[in-house]
Amino acid sequence: MAPVGPQPAVADVRRAVREALADVPEGALVLAACSGGADSLALAAALAFVAPRMRLRAGLLTVDHQLQPGSDQRAQTVAALATELGLTPAEVLTVTVGTAGGPEAAAREARYTALARAADRLRAEVVLLGHTRDDQAETVLLGLARGSGPRSLSGMAPVAGRYRRPLLGLPRSTTVAACRAQGLTPWDDPHNEDSRYTRVRVRGKVLPVLEEELGPGVAEALARTAALARQDADALDQWAESAYQDCALSDIGASVRLSVAEVEKLPDAVRRRVLRRAAIVAGAPSGALSAGHVLAVDRLVTHWHGQKAVDLPGGLSAIRRYGTLIFAISPIP
Amino acid sequence: MAPVGPQPAVADVRRAVREALADVPEGALVLAACSGGADSLALAAALAFVAPRMRLRAGLLTVDHQLQPGSDQRAQTVAALATELGLTPAEVLTVTVGTAGGPEAAAREARYTALARAADRLRAEVVLLGHTRDDQAETVLLGLARGSGPRSLSGMAPVAGRYRRPLLGLPRSTTVAACRAQGLTPWDDPHNEDSRYTRVRVRGKVLPVLEEELGPGVAEALARTAALARQDADALDQWAESAYQDCALSDIGASVRLSVAEVEKLPDAVRRRVLRRAAIVAGAPSGALSAGHVLAVDRLVTHWHGQKAVDLPGGLSAIRRYGTLIFAISPIP
Repeated sequence: MAPVGPQPAVADVRRAVREALADVPEGALVLAACSGGADSLALAAALAFVAPRMRLRAGLLTVDHQLQPGSDQRAQTVAALATELGLTPAEVLTVTVGTAGGPEAAAREARYTALARAADRLRAEVVLLGHTRDDQAETVLLGLARGSGPRSLSGMAPVAGRYRRPLLGLPRSTTVAACRAQGLTPWDDPHNEDSRYTRVRVRGKVLPVLEEELGPGVAEALARTAALARQDADALDQWAESAYQDCALSDIGASVRLSVAEVEKLPDAVRRRVLRRAAIVAGAPSGALSAGHVLAVDRLVTHWHGQKAVDLPGGLSAIRRYGTLIFAISPIP
Repeated sequence: MAPVGPQPAVADVRRAVREALADVPEGALVLAACSGGADSLALAAALAFVAPRMRLRAGLLTVDHQLQPGSDQRAQTVAALATELGLTPAEVLTVTVGTAGGPEAAAREARYTALARAADRLRAEVVLLGHTRDDQAETVLLGLARGSGPRSLSGMAPVAGRYRRPLLGLPRSTTVAACRAQGLTPWDDPHNEDSRYTRVRVRGKVLPVLEEELGPGVAEALARTAALARQDADALDQWAESAYQDCALSDIGASVRLSVAEVEKLPDAVRRRVLRRAAIVAGAPSGALSAGHVLAVDRLVTHWHGQKAVDLPGGLSAIRRYGTLIFAISPIP
């Protein structure tokens, strides 16, 4: 009789983790960030299996957000389970969630700050996050609803600094099946049922309707769109970076001067990225700089009829003088 | 008392038509394609108003698809109304719809063939189409569900050859209001209620759920995404065109040879476009060439370990020989 291999879902999660860690040097420490939910629990179990076979050290971090009664006990349970799986260190990070930017953003901010500090302290090479293809599909839909263009459709990065997301190609159903097959009982976060959160409504109402009306492959199609949009955005950023160098006459301190003749030659998508970059180099806060601002500056190039200066966030203006576009603190002398 | 201007919706449609025709030479003939529905009826009325003021000639085409009893009479009614509005010529184009590609695609094919022939015969400079921002949002969602990447998110072009879509920036509610304000009674196509059509389900079920769960600006956000995605795709196509010239060692007849060293230097998004282009130049039918095919060829560049030839549609193969990637009829000698 052939030897019995692991259940397919367990094998899929392990393979994804192994591939994501292929380039990590031997002896390095890899941490799984684990809420105790099915995704990150399957991730932690796979890391515990894979790491020793790749000569890596493996640990776990779980964040106690202190937002629900008993959250401390739950975090302790996750840490205890991690130790049982052979993950050491297994640490509970207790955080205090603020209010800035709404409940989801505040919890996220507190969580990532705590993860980064712990990773620094423990000298971890990599922190694994358990986001799945379904999370990616939700992120794309949220980006789509903002309408801020292809970059916002590119979803979450598979690799970003020390963070890696090995499960972005797998559906949530695989992590649920992997937990079941390994006798692991995931924790169901009540926040995942709270329809005050936009993401919860996307998961519970929007995606099911899309699957029903457009066919069952929608989450996969959204994740594929994210990957392609990310490649496109990366390539265009690279082009804009080099085009900016060609267009910049000077960018000393809080004043940037671009050659209109050079800027004019660029295709729309690149020209607007160059103008956006110039405004940011001159000191405009990127979060406050809208597509509308960039479009107004663009009209100084493409629809020039002697307009006045365009006001930009951060007390800046953009103005055209003969063949030069100047970004500086207003009023520009 | 100030003179009473046109109702705002009427003014919006007229302005959109005027802007879309700004570069058309005096005396040219512009045709509105009109089904009798609210969108194209408002378009036709606006064209009738705007054209004489811009010294343009204006006519109308309406297609009788012969798919519903009485479709011929309805088409005659639209043509008669056009003449009343001052649009001449006003022609009914009677077509026979085939079955290839499903009912929507077959009707579309028959319609555009008839429009193109009539435009040729009448020597029209421009044919206006009545698609609105809502149609654009539906198109983006359909593209998203296919998951074929940013190009499929870029929706319908505002200008494509002699076709122009002046109303892509206006919601459907504006065309409905414009018809009402001008005493025009639009025809409600029963196909627009037939839930066998994917587009009808997107309109009737998917978009309303998105608006309800994500906020009322979703259609606008989708249309904005389309415009940005189109700019990005255009810029990347331009880059890929010039990169292809740098990479091509030869592309005579049905055989294309690319320099691996040059191809390797390109970012993912551009490299895959160059490979796609090479396959098409060598004779692969573009409709049959999938992202999966391109990815397999890409692995000859990025994950080279002596693979065999990659089979492509149209009886082609791609093979790597030392520093050269060869696309040709298989087997490549």
